[in-house]
Amino acid sequence: MLPDHPEREQIRLESVLAALGNPLRLAIVRTLAESGERNCSSLLRAQSKSTMTHHWRVLRTSGVIWQRPEGRENLLSLRRVDLDARFPGLLDALLGVMEHDAPGHETTEPKES
Amino acid sequence: MLPDHPEREQIRLESVLAALGNPLRLAIVRTLAESGERNCSSLLRAQSKSTMTHHWRVLRTSGVIWQRPEGRENLLSLRRVDLDARFPGLLDALLGVMEHDAPGHETTEPKES
Repeated sequence: MLPDHPEREQIRLESVLAALGNPLRLAIVRTLAESGERNCSSLLRAQSKSTMTHHWRVLRTSGVIWQRPEGRENLLSLRRVDLDARFPGLLDALLGVMEHDAPGHETTEPKES
Repeated sequence: MLPDHPEREQIRLESVLAALGNPLRLAIVRTLAESGERNCSSLLRAQSKSTMTHHWRVLRTSGVIWQRPEGRENLLSLRRVDLDARFPGLLDALLGVMEHDAPGHETTEPKES
């Protein structure tokens, strides 16, 4: 077990949902789901290092991602096996929804009311 | 449309997840899913009124619940139709997970690592 990561049985639903309740973190999870393990810096983009460090911490300590050091960098990956074991079907539902509802996406459909 | 509630198209995934990222709010959602419309005060339990008012606001403004006045009280209900339309399968997955992983529930299984 890597330090500062919860074990599978310690992962809590509300912590995972809180971790995902942010557009940037949602986008990271989607990217990791699609691309597998990624280098931290390849996900940094336009954000400051301290901002991203904060987001990695939230995702890591809630049990959403693995963050393991390699050389001077960190590699990130989704804890898909653990999340699927703890919360069957949830990640698939979320990723399916994100396919059709990308973070930051604004619907332009006419309002119903 | 009730005031201070987002319209269906304005409901954002990250806001819903953030609203659900709290054990008390998760428990409220579960109760509303099981019991339909409920009187605010029947859900108050051991929490202070100001605490619950805060949680109603988070759930309402994120689009998770309807909160409508009736007499001197408010009635609460889950926006199931809207959530299912916006995020197909997500609420079902969440409620299914909660069945087996009640908020506040501590697993007692032996650790794997």
